[in-house]
Amino acid sequence: MAAKTLASCLFCKIIKGEIPSYKLVETELSYSFLDIGPLSKGHALVIPKYHAEKMHQLPDEYLSDAMPIAKKIALAQGAENYNILQNNGRLAHQLVDHVHFHVIPKPNNEEGLGVGWPSQTLSKEELEGVWETLKKKL
Amino acid sequence: MAAKTLASCLFCKIIKGEIPSYKLVETELSYSFLDIGPLSKGHALVIPKYHAEKMHQLPDEYLSDAMPIAKKIALAQGAENYNILQNNGRLAHQLVDHVHFHVIPKPNNEEGLGVGWPSQTLSKEELEGVWETLKKKL
Repeated sequence: MAAKTLASCLFCKIIKGEIPSYKLVETELSYSFLDIGPLSKGHALVIPKYHAEKMHQLPDEYLSDAMPIAKKIALAQGAENYNILQNNGRLAHQLVDHVHFHVIPKPNNEEGLGVGWPSQTLSKEELEGVWETLKKKL
Repeated sequence: MAAKTLASCLFCKIIKGEIPSYKLVETELSYSFLDIGPLSKGHALVIPKYHAEKMHQLPDEYLSDAMPIAKKIALAQGAENYNILQNNGRLAHQLVDHVHFHVIPKPNNEEGLGVGWPSQTLSKEELEGVWETLKKKL
């Protein structure tokens, strides 16, 4: 396996088969399985076979491989209402420090991901300031 | 442009330059720009240059192109705590019917995405049932 794994990582152990999982799709670069504490029935995770804590630390090929797998899973789930979510850092609700993409069916208001949307009103000047700052770093 | 666009779609108009935007990264297959009603400063969107309402309707090449752009933007934002979110369907909080990936900094508890996590406890038998059903469709 070309995987770069970390011996102490829960998800790396799942990739290596040291901890059992309800495996869905596996490719050379990615592994996917059911979340055992699901937000709704069918809630699945897609993870890269490369130990990185946050998504910006992953080589692009792993990022590119993950999303078509999420699509396959969404289709198998029924592909009506659903969320794709990937959390980075404790503040952003990341609980396991190995990049994972959630594929979460949203069958009704009670089950699935709860989305809180505290949108802000920025002035044109504020938006332009943020834009200029970001562009310099891109 | 190889883009497949829909004349009446807001995001297709942004891709074509018919509506102005705070553009960030553009590739042959994708376009990205600042969300003008942000959840936090720097909140950005990555969209495919292909009109599809939900992500499972997109050709894989568009899905694969989007995530490395989200990574570039996350790095420019500072890449500490952040969420990648893609909503499908009104129940799942999708407001514009053209696939878009949110890249949302989470600087503190008040700003950025609010994550509600109503996790369920399923028995081994229930999980196995869901697993068997999904596997048949994969």
